[in-house]
Amino acid sequence: MPTYKAPLEDMRFVLHELFDSTSRAVLPGNTDFSRDLIDSILDHASRLTEDVLFPLNQQGDLEGCVLENGRVRTPSGFKKAYKIFCDGGWTAMSASPDWGGQAVPISVAMMVDEMLCSSNVAFALYPGLSRGAYVALSHVGGENLKEIYLPNLVSGKWSATMCLTEAHCGTDLGMLRTRAVPKEDGSYGISGDKIFISAGEHDLTENIIHLVLARLPDAPAGVRGISMFLVPKFLPKKDGTPGPRNGVQCTALEHKMGIHGSATCTMNFDNATGWLLGEPNKGLAGMFTMMNVERVAVGMQGLGIAEVAYQNAVLYARERLQGRSLRGPKAPTKPADPIIVHPDIRRMLLTMRAYIEGCRAVACWVGNELEVLQKSDDIDAKLMAEDFSALMTPVVKALFTDLGFEIASLAVQVYGGHGYIRDHGVEQFLRDARISMLYEGTNGVQALDLVTRKLPHDRGRLLSRFFGPVVGFIEQQSQNRVLEPFLPQLRRAVEHLQSATSFIAENAPSNHDEAGAASAEYLRLFGLVALAFVWTRMASISAPRIEEPGHRGKFYRAKMRTAQFFMDRLLPQTGALLAAIQSGSKIMMEFEDTAF
Amino acid sequence: MPTYKAPLEDMRFVLHELFDSTSRAVLPGNTDFSRDLIDSILDHASRLTEDVLFPLNQQGDLEGCVLENGRVRTPSGFKKAYKIFCDGGWTAMSASPDWGGQAVPISVAMMVDEMLCSSNVAFALYPGLSRGAYVALSHVGGENLKEIYLPNLVSGKWSATMCLTEAHCGTDLGMLRTRAVPKEDGSYGISGDKIFISAGEHDLTENIIHLVLARLPDAPAGVRGISMFLVPKFLPKKDGTPGPRNGVQCTALEHKMGIHGSATCTMNFDNATGWLLGEPNKGLAGMFTMMNVERVAVGMQGLGIAEVAYQNAVLYARERLQGRSLRGPKAPTKPADPIIVHPDIRRMLLTMRAYIEGCRAVACWVGNELEVLQKSDDIDAKLMAEDFSALMTPVVKALFTDLGFEIASLAVQVYGGHGYIRDHGVEQFLRDARISMLYEGTNGVQALDLVTRKLPHDRGRLLSRFFGPVVGFIEQQSQNRVLEPFLPQLRRAVEHLQSATSFIAENAPSNHDEAGAASAEYLRLFGLVALAFVWTRMASISAPRIEEPGHRGKFYRAKMRTAQFFMDRLLPQTGALLAAIQSGSKIMMEFEDTAF
Repeated sequence: MPTYKAPLEDMRFVLHELFDSTSRAVLPGNTDFSRDLIDSILDHASRLTEDVLFPLNQQGDLEGCVLENGRVRTPSGFKKAYKIFCDGGWTAMSASPDWGGQAVPISVAMMVDEMLCSSNVAFALYPGLSRGAYVALSHVGGENLKEIYLPNLVSGKWSATMCLTEAHCGTDLGMLRTRAVPKEDGSYGISGDKIFISAGEHDLTENIIHLVLARLPDAPAGVRGISMFLVPKFLPKKDGTPGPRNGVQCTALEHKMGIHGSATCTMNFDNATGWLLGEPNKGLAGMFTMMNVERVAVGMQGLGIAEVAYQNAVLYARERLQGRSLRGPKAPTKPADPIIVHPDIRRMLLTMRAYIEGCRAVACWVGNELEVLQKSDDIDAKLMAEDFSALMTPVVKALFTDLGFEIASLAVQVYGGHGYIRDHGVEQFLRDARISMLYEGTNGVQALDLVTRKLPHDRGRLLSRFFGPVVGFIEQQSQNRVLEPFLPQLRRAVEHLQSATSFIAENAPSNHDEAGAASAEYLRLFGLVALAFVWTRMASISAPRIEEPGHRGKFYRAKMRTAQFFMDRLLPQTGALLAAIQSGSKIMMEFEDTAF
Repeated sequence: MPTYKAPLEDMRFVLHELFDSTSRAVLPGNTDFSRDLIDSILDHASRLTEDVLFPLNQQGDLEGCVLENGRVRTPSGFKKAYKIFCDGGWTAMSASPDWGGQAVPISVAMMVDEMLCSSNVAFALYPGLSRGAYVALSHVGGENLKEIYLPNLVSGKWSATMCLTEAHCGTDLGMLRTRAVPKEDGSYGISGDKIFISAGEHDLTENIIHLVLARLPDAPAGVRGISMFLVPKFLPKKDGTPGPRNGVQCTALEHKMGIHGSATCTMNFDNATGWLLGEPNKGLAGMFTMMNVERVAVGMQGLGIAEVAYQNAVLYARERLQGRSLRGPKAPTKPADPIIVHPDIRRMLLTMRAYIEGCRAVACWVGNELEVLQKSDDIDAKLMAEDFSALMTPVVKALFTDLGFEIASLAVQVYGGHGYIRDHGVEQFLRDARISMLYEGTNGVQALDLVTRKLPHDRGRLLSRFFGPVVGFIEQQSQNRVLEPFLPQLRRAVEHLQSATSFIAENAPSNHDEAGAASAEYLRLFGLVALAFVWTRMASISAPRIEEPGHRGKFYRAKMRTAQFFMDRLLPQTGALLAAIQSGSKIMMEFEDTAF
């Protein structure tokens, strides 16, 4: 049976020590969020995830969801857990107090998100989608719609979906066919079929609100003719309670590789009543406010699964007795040594650890900037934060999920043959992690977004929000002797990223395929540099504290060694990535299509 | 629905053009195996795998195996397919004519193996284990046992298993507890429990022969006290037909991530009658003759699944319309371009292709040397072939299976969200591929075998069998102008491998952990150099033929471009691997155990 314990110590480290938490505390609305309150939120979240959600994770995978007569039954225990989740106020965590929310600092909410995804990513998807819908609705919805729907989404009484994908179009929404026909009363009749709708139908809430992309009769072709509509499962009565059934049905559930506890629905809209959200034909912009929230959240899924996979691999490596240390028995009274004595097992565990703690630090960095963007009243700071978070969104989504999958696979490897057996629960992490590289824009789409939109924007303005602090830190710390084992490697990796950026900037304008050809490697290179930066920062903070007595000293020593491991073992990939990027697009593009 | 078409053209290329096929033809016993006969074997295998086995693959995954009253029911169609398999003589392919076999050249048999694993790896495991047992039995079995069992294994009438693993020991067989008590008639009573026994029980054959590792009463502790026994499910009668039931039972089936069609059994031996194979307490040596055959076969599983995953990704990339080329519409009459126009899709497809065709060439190289080892009467040639195949066995096993999994994951990625849905069949490839990195010795164990046994053996004698031909080729071709885009990169990668080898040779003797710490990266580095070598050779053969008319010219042009892609995009990893190796074991070993 797998286990999970929320990594509170490391979360507190990144939240309170790694970044300047005072700058978060002074933001408007944040005065109440003292260190004590934040720690208390984390503690409560750890109990929820360890005691309520994680125990349902394996059973949820086994049972999956069942569709019967148009109704979807979620796995045993999900309903009760969802009630506990709502009663605890977790659906309200990120929302504005105007609508009953708590407006918890985003970096803190992201740590809670990580715990949710570690403990039960299939469950987390139900309230998860509501949050994105909340953001979209509060941005573009009319006041009357907000007043009916937002409080119910925030309380968790109702949940929401994003209905974008159709069978023939996912990435390329310009092709979508769902139609919206205006009715006399100002509402619209929505008709069409959507696929891959997470939480499209389930038994957790009394109503489900679909945000649907569709075309108006006079809409121009392509992405400029897409509008967004709000379509509830039950049409609210005057008093705001659910009324008559609307014309929307779940017609099928997908059978998937993983996240079996999450209902992935095919939805049919048959002249369903909906209301326009935002302006006609500008639905994609509204949906993207939702999508960006989701993309960061999906990144946290990768991190969350990586963490629980790592924890179980560590426990197994400590318990499993097999073979002897290459340098002679370490546990001579036992029939064999625990496999944690073997260097290759340690290599795997440290690889997992170095990526996980690095990603957690990057998450906190991005969360802090999103917080400035949301709450600051300093226009310049907001603009910079907007640039930075726009730049980092595809990186967080793709890097964290690629690594989440790699880490889950390493965990299986630590278990050996036992990792392939369902009972141990570790192969579930691998299956559950795989989806995160695909949905909310495949990781290839993220890389393309980074390279073709974020990079060239305003001559690299977004990029400067990243290079600025990194290069500044390197300069500022150049005389810091404790960083001697780190700074040269960080500097070299930054140079690799700069060279790769120049290569793209020089070649892509005359041949757009150069951007596409470089994109996947560029995103990984970018991500590694971001990790190297946060690891060097973590080392700078930890170095003076390694002699602290007891557990704290051990914590900081582990940080120093993991930092070194990252620099020595993982960061050298940047050179190979740069070489691949610099080889250009020619070879791949001139390969004859029919020769594949 | 997934599809499969055996890659016969590329198989013929590696078998007949890449390596000197005359040297194979002149080996004793091979005179009949003309090019025509070999091509005919491949053709027959393609029909078997495309028409009989592949259509059962997806359904087999869905149904899995069922245990009822001690009997295991294989998925629908497996029984009929197994009969066709035996009738076609495929169980006899690799066996000696002395026992009814065909002694097909090993490189050819490996290509057939690849097809079997592409089409239905779960099915392929049933006859697959028999082949390893055939090898062990023919090496160490007494004549009376051989006469009863070998013809039945060769005809496929009976099948076999390898019973090594117990719940508390897999890698570390020294701890095994199954006991063997001598009886008066010269047989033994075998008692104990074994787990993870592939094909331990099923409904395909009239008898199942278990090769079981167990301890004699007076056996020394550890690996020097393990003996091997032959334990049939039904004790043969005097006339050789199956007689009374023996004391061996399947008590459970494992629920696994994949290969659902393969019965992975827990086997209980309750004073079952068995016969000693080979000498007492020397069972591990006998088992390893079997294990080495299996390790190469498992490598081919990785390659086989990679091939079918690649083929489906290509088809999907040609059919799926989504978005437009970054350089303007390529299919203006369609609503969108096929995704094969996108550089990042091509990057994924070419990565898959470059690894697959490279591995196939390495497989043929190893197969040719195994063939010399088996059939040559030239003692020196045999010794060299033995060295080479011993060196390459862990590389083939670990490299091919690591890449097989990576490639299956890339195929899922090409499919986008649809890749995560069971119907498309591509996620099954990912699940089925994952086991190959674990069984027959985890890939970590392979890497350790390479670095701690194969590398230092007789001062690097085995290694010289690899470096010899590679360095010789580089020197011999140094003036070959068509190889100008390849040789410098190959040379550089060889230098990286040499540096890594020196690092290990210098540091491991005084600290064995240095070998373990370097092992995984060293194996990958070694594998990349082997791939670079075969790619350069393939380029040298293809370059003069790219202008050939029609399809042949296209084939050779594709080879040249894939070779270039491998050199430019994938080979640069060697630098990063070398850097990781040279960072040594210190950081990982001094990380405090309790700090993980």
